[in-house]
Amino acid sequence: MTESIKHELAAASAHEVRRRARSGELRGPTPGMALGYVQANLVIVPSELAFDFLLFCHRNPKPCPLLDVTEPGSPEPAMVAAGADLRTDLPQYRVYLEGKLADEPHNLHDWWRADLVSFLLGCSFTFESALLKEGIPVRHVELGCNVPMYRTNRMCQKAGHFAGPLVVSMRPMTPDQAERAVKICSDFPRAHGAPVHSGDPAALGIRDISQPDFGDRVEIRPGEIPVFWACGVTPQAVALEAKLPFLITHKPGHMFLTDLRDAELMGER
Amino acid sequence: MTESIKHELAAASAHEVRRRARSGELRGPTPGMALGYVQANLVIVPSELAFDFLLFCHRNPKPCPLLDVTEPGSPEPAMVAAGADLRTDLPQYRVYLEGKLADEPHNLHDWWRADLVSFLLGCSFTFESALLKEGIPVRHVELGCNVPMYRTNRMCQKAGHFAGPLVVSMRPMTPDQAERAVKICSDFPRAHGAPVHSGDPAALGIRDISQPDFGDRVEIRPGEIPVFWACGVTPQAVALEAKLPFLITHKPGHMFLTDLRDAELMGER
Repeated sequence: MTESIKHELAAASAHEVRRRARSGELRGPTPGMALGYVQANLVIVPSELAFDFLLFCHRNPKPCPLLDVTEPGSPEPAMVAAGADLRTDLPQYRVYLEGKLADEPHNLHDWWRADLVSFLLGCSFTFESALLKEGIPVRHVELGCNVPMYRTNRMCQKAGHFAGPLVVSMRPMTPDQAERAVKICSDFPRAHGAPVHSGDPAALGIRDISQPDFGDRVEIRPGEIPVFWACGVTPQAVALEAKLPFLITHKPGHMFLTDLRDAELMGER
Repeated sequence: MTESIKHELAAASAHEVRRRARSGELRGPTPGMALGYVQANLVIVPSELAFDFLLFCHRNPKPCPLLDVTEPGSPEPAMVAAGADLRTDLPQYRVYLEGKLADEPHNLHDWWRADLVSFLLGCSFTFESALLKEGIPVRHVELGCNVPMYRTNRMCQKAGHFAGPLVVSMRPMTPDQAERAVKICSDFPRAHGAPVHSGDPAALGIRDISQPDFGDRVEIRPGEIPVFWACGVTPQAVALEAKLPFLITHKPGHMFLTDLRDAELMGER
């Protein structure tokens, strides 16, 4: 994907981004596209595992904020993007068989089955956009790299086949910025909400902050503390850990664009 | 049940009320018992319908605020009352076969199966208690009768087998009290949250406010307006409407006492 397409799609609608992915024109990552629209993580499991996975998400709302769940076999997330097709409308997917990466296709024509249930989960782009609007810098956005993510020693509430540790993402900021970030992000319970921890990484069982388990390392500057959010990689890590016979996710960074606006993810209160 | 047992149990713990129900000593309704503890609606469905029902609750959080969902076959709601047993710890149940009432037992020893999934849902007692604390009178509590409930013309978001209209409960109050009630109840998204409507019943498709579909009629006095909340009878009505081969609920008013305190149902923000 050229920079010009990325720039062109910044002001596009979610519908337009989905159309470009569907046509095969858009095959790259989606950060910065259709600004103001909610981007979502995708997890697809066979229907016999769907109850357990839905229950896992319900029990762990901070890492797994559910935006929509499809009826078995339906590729249409009717609550957040009527008319969209989850088999084609993301730029790239990952297909896992028995817990092993088997394919990274640009559509699911070769993999779709009538028993699949799709889960769309809120993602950090929503609250990062709110932080940036309030003048709080986000290091990995500035650097143009991936957010650093860490496995923690906090176990999620298990549900059936699904169990495992909470994964967190980290953004360095000053203590003052961290305090403001808590307020800002509390408004977005459906996009991971307030940070789960600020300060000493050891409190989460993280031994070496310079070695993230996923994503890229970013610098913590003098006067800054690491601030940790529940991360949408958690349900994917847990689903992979369960070594499901069949599992599909988006390729990291290649998200689904919903028709929801960022403000719609704010809580009821 | 004598009034003296009811009075004795007002200050009891949730655990104690469950123990009395389990022993068979408590067979009557639970309002006014274990004050400060969250009471919950119960719906039990076979596991092959559990995904659809969980999805229905997720899509309709105002009438169906999920407090806990059990693993298939487990009678223990581990998240809200570790060690409790849903087969015995409610005073009375209703068992439906093919949508028809088949039994009203005091325990489920004759009906339990290894494929059952139990759902506990928040109930209006929680926000009524908050209203009363703030000096807002609740008519049906004053009268010692059941809250009036109405089928509306608002359809729930359907999920698989489960579809049907929103059922609302009604409490008459002055416009000023109604405004305060919105603020107070907004704090309890896991107990139906803010009212869905105040004023003209016709806006909800209710033709005759003096003829509730469930519960008892209460007087609306001069200067008062009817205030409507999403009601926990909704998922039961929808489950009944679906004519499931097998369905168990609590008998109305005979609720499950959780170990949660009312304040724990307040939202995150």
